[in-house]
Amino acid sequence: MTQRAVVIGADAAGMSAAHQALRAAQSSGRELEVIALEATDTTSYSACGIPYWIGGEAESAAALVARWPDQIRAAGIDLRTETPAVGVDLTAHTVTTADGSVLEYDDLVLATGAEPIVPDWVTNEAGELPEGVGPVKTLADGEAWLQRLSDRDRPVLVLGGGYIGVEVAEAARRRGHPVTLRTRGRVMSNLAPELSDRVEDTMRSAGVILELDTQVDSLEREAGAAVVVALGITPRTSLVSGQAPLSDRGALRPDGRGVVADGLWSAGDCCEVRHRLLDEWVFLPLGTHANKHGRALGDHLGSGGHGRWSFDGALGTAITRFAVGPARAEVALTGLTPAQAGVDEGRAVSLITEGGTASGYLEESEPVAINVIADPTDRRLLGVQIVGGRGAGKRIDAAAACLWAGMSVDDLAWMDLSYAPPFATAWDILQVAARRLADRM
Amino acid sequence: MTQRAVVIGADAAGMSAAHQALRAAQSSGRELEVIALEATDTTSYSACGIPYWIGGEAESAAALVARWPDQIRAAGIDLRTETPAVGVDLTAHTVTTADGSVLEYDDLVLATGAEPIVPDWVTNEAGELPEGVGPVKTLADGEAWLQRLSDRDRPVLVLGGGYIGVEVAEAARRRGHPVTLRTRGRVMSNLAPELSDRVEDTMRSAGVILELDTQVDSLEREAGAAVVVALGITPRTSLVSGQAPLSDRGALRPDGRGVVADGLWSAGDCCEVRHRLLDEWVFLPLGTHANKHGRALGDHLGSGGHGRWSFDGALGTAITRFAVGPARAEVALTGLTPAQAGVDEGRAVSLITEGGTASGYLEESEPVAINVIADPTDRRLLGVQIVGGRGAGKRIDAAAACLWAGMSVDDLAWMDLSYAPPFATAWDILQVAARRLADRM
Repeated sequence: MTQRAVVIGADAAGMSAAHQALRAAQSSGRELEVIALEATDTTSYSACGIPYWIGGEAESAAALVARWPDQIRAAGIDLRTETPAVGVDLTAHTVTTADGSVLEYDDLVLATGAEPIVPDWVTNEAGELPEGVGPVKTLADGEAWLQRLSDRDRPVLVLGGGYIGVEVAEAARRRGHPVTLRTRGRVMSNLAPELSDRVEDTMRSAGVILELDTQVDSLEREAGAAVVVALGITPRTSLVSGQAPLSDRGALRPDGRGVVADGLWSAGDCCEVRHRLLDEWVFLPLGTHANKHGRALGDHLGSGGHGRWSFDGALGTAITRFAVGPARAEVALTGLTPAQAGVDEGRAVSLITEGGTASGYLEESEPVAINVIADPTDRRLLGVQIVGGRGAGKRIDAAAACLWAGMSVDDLAWMDLSYAPPFATAWDILQVAARRLADRM
Repeated sequence: MTQRAVVIGADAAGMSAAHQALRAAQSSGRELEVIALEATDTTSYSACGIPYWIGGEAESAAALVARWPDQIRAAGIDLRTETPAVGVDLTAHTVTTADGSVLEYDDLVLATGAEPIVPDWVTNEAGELPEGVGPVKTLADGEAWLQRLSDRDRPVLVLGGGYIGVEVAEAARRRGHPVTLRTRGRVMSNLAPELSDRVEDTMRSAGVILELDTQVDSLEREAGAAVVVALGITPRTSLVSGQAPLSDRGALRPDGRGVVADGLWSAGDCCEVRHRLLDEWVFLPLGTHANKHGRALGDHLGSGGHGRWSFDGALGTAITRFAVGPARAEVALTGLTPAQAGVDEGRAVSLITEGGTASGYLEESEPVAINVIADPTDRRLLGVQIVGGRGAGKRIDAAAACLWAGMSVDDLAWMDLSYAPPFATAWDILQVAARRLADRM
């Protein structure tokens, strides 16, 4: 008997799930119908890529689309674009769409993602965004920004000092706009303050005006300035509010297979994920988690619960960069932040080490600073944070692998990482950083 | 009572050992005298950097020196340059130097390194190298090469397709010389053939003529050609031959603390190291091992055997690149090679995956191919090999960390590595490669 899965949301998590579900059903000899409901006319686009499109690095919205509707349909998915789901009945196993149709399902996949946080003080009395003000989340947002920034002299005010804020500040500076970034704390406040300083110095050297430690609760802005609202995102789960368990933040909490409850599945930015080190639920809305978790979900759904793969939590690994002309900072972190680890409270020890990305006699050598955090009781590595020039950031992956395995700071210091003069110093700077902390413990 | 350690060889292993021994002695309240005997007038130079000096990337021999004699002496080491050790008596605990002095010691550290293999057919009847022919190992070799290559039209024949051969071919092409590389097999023959092909294609696109699968047993060369002898290196251990146990290759086999026998220590290129995956002794003469093993040695020697650190073997991690103008291949590998793992014999499975180093819509995206090797019985990751454009090579470190911990190919595929469009695809290509193999197992 053919089972029917309805997927709400045709972006990273939903489409990873749908494709993998069909593959898993086929290889396990099961009959599965997959209907995907998408509110917009776009599918599987790289939201992370929008700042690069605005900044002129990606040439068009089309470049950001990973899978087009035709490709999705060709894979056997009954994709219905511009078809918002407006109601879900988890008891009756039905989904109602905006045109009034009611779809029955055996399995429901919520892949509704997240939406930008837009505080009251940003909108006008009618609840609308004023002219020149907007978030950076959808392709439509991207189009709007290209319009707003058609005049290269227009000042840009970025609200928020996280990833999106930094990336849009970069994009606007690359276009030549005067840019101010306003944030209630530091830029990239998950970093140790000394590392935030480096990012801030890089941004200032590229002409970005930083308003740090500034209350952000009004739209006060220079006349004519466009305003980027980059104050974070929030899970989009209203369809199941009151019917499914939600976290305080309003997020779903699926297990590693994507299971929320019998017949109800979810993955992606509408979910929290398990943090492997904290052993707590955390909100880490990243495309890489959406892809992985969606694929694991599809594997279990399509195989009737006999999937092989599981999304076994996150470490908090992330990377970005600020690069405008000669100013360049790659920023990466994994594991616990200094605050999460309790560095200030003495529950963890940390040390910042400065060095280079390559042997000092080669022009490839770029400055880098690395913060290593460890548990003083069992010497376990807890977190690593990197700020540096070209080639610095991706070093975070070796640290992430150490955290995944629960290795010690000594393991990281002494393991066999790669060395040749254009790529590292004889002790890679990541290992120098780990070794210096290990020596002091 | 002051103990005396005599260190023979003032390069990476010896000087790491000497410095760390003094630090460890000081912190454990022991009195230690360290005498270092160095045959040449140079100390602690980067042999790996010589090709980059020849190629004009490092500006001088001085740039390659990590520690100068004065710095070493200032650290409290009794360094004696141009003082070759000509005899060692392990029973009497004495070292004889070329000037006839006899030094007594409590501990002897052999850090004599390795020397280039120069077959009989390379030398003339007097056992000397013909004009225009030489290896690339010492700073003197580097000076000789700069002389030989003063005429940019002079053809260069490189014998050997390993790291040094590829790096010197790069250097000579960067200088504009016509370059031929001759090797008995493939270039970088530790790679899967398809990956060697990529390196070879890159070299050819930069104008290097490759003579592959060619018997290399005569000096047959174009008139006037300079000849680089890059046929490997061999441990320099004649001082203790007949007195200390040596491997078939003539290498010492110290343990992780650098101990060969009571009072006899060694580290660096005169040693074999334990391969963590093969659980066998292997000859991996690399600066990074020399530095790490030397430091562990010094830690134990200086603390009277109470050192905290140990060199716990190698994985075979290595990296290099060939980059001339637009032609660029980064090459990296870790763990077992296809031959070591027994891929052809069916003892291991492997799969090559092609992709990009960044999101395809950004100019940062460079092509990359990754070979992943795993054990089909327990799914353990056995090896990873990478060839690709800028940003490809250092990805090897995440794989090395997985191997260090004994993780599975599934761990590598699903762990939390970093993603942002300028740095990776949503599944990093390393994870795509691992996942594709895992899916087929």
